[in-house]
Amino acid sequence: MTFSELLKGILERVEGSIGIAIMGLDGLAIEQAQVPSKMELGEHVALIATSHATLLRNTMRMSSDTGVGLLNELTLVSDDFRLVVRLIGREYFIILTLGPGGNIGRARFELRKAHLLLEKEFV
Amino acid sequence: MTFSELLKGILERVEGSIGIAIMGLDGLAIEQAQVPSKMELGEHVALIATSHATLLRNTMRMSSDTGVGLLNELTLVSDDFRLVVRLIGREYFIILTLGPGGNIGRARFELRKAHLLLEKEFV
Repeated sequence: MTFSELLKGILERVEGSIGIAIMGLDGLAIEQAQVPSKMELGEHVALIATSHATLLRNTMRMSSDTGVGLLNELTLVSDDFRLVVRLIGREYFIILTLGPGGNIGRARFELRKAHLLLEKEFV
Repeated sequence: MTFSELLKGILERVEGSIGIAIMGLDGLAIEQAQVPSKMELGEHVALIATSHATLLRNTMRMSSDTGVGLLNELTLVSDDFRLVVRLIGREYFIILTLGPGGNIGRARFELRKAHLLLEKEFV
């Protein structure tokens, strides 16, 4: 299975999905996919993914400073979007953007499964 | 119901809870409660709650910069803790700290209910 197939499969299985990306913590996208009917949100989703690289770097630093332990997962709910982020190794993350009615529980489940597949590639 | 009763009720209802606090975004605690059998983690939990004030301020700024919309909720999963945070108005938040096996779905549900009760007081 290619990265692209993996990402598209997640978009199909999680209700309310808009877009998904595998990103480096440096803010560069490695692979991304969009739900075709929601292409008009594409630029938006790319900007959100890139901004999260910075947020995740800060959060990982805070986690280690306060002894919270290694960060694995982050979920954000705002008025307009729901974001589920899963760290892959110490350099990469996968970020799934959902609309306001998106299924966060299913999203977390799918990203945990993807993590198991991806961690061998990203060590 | 006092704030203290509200917080203790949530700790009792959410499996895996360690501590909970109502905080200002300036980092000052308004009310807090701990699960008595996990008191040895108390200082730790207080530090985590205070550190999150900074993280939330940064995240709220990023949310508004990238057009994600007003932030409502944030969840963090690390090796050692699970944190569920709910914004109350624009100045306060409630943060629930769970152990590694804590029930995040139930925690999100309880904080949404608490939000409805608290938002009248914190406007």
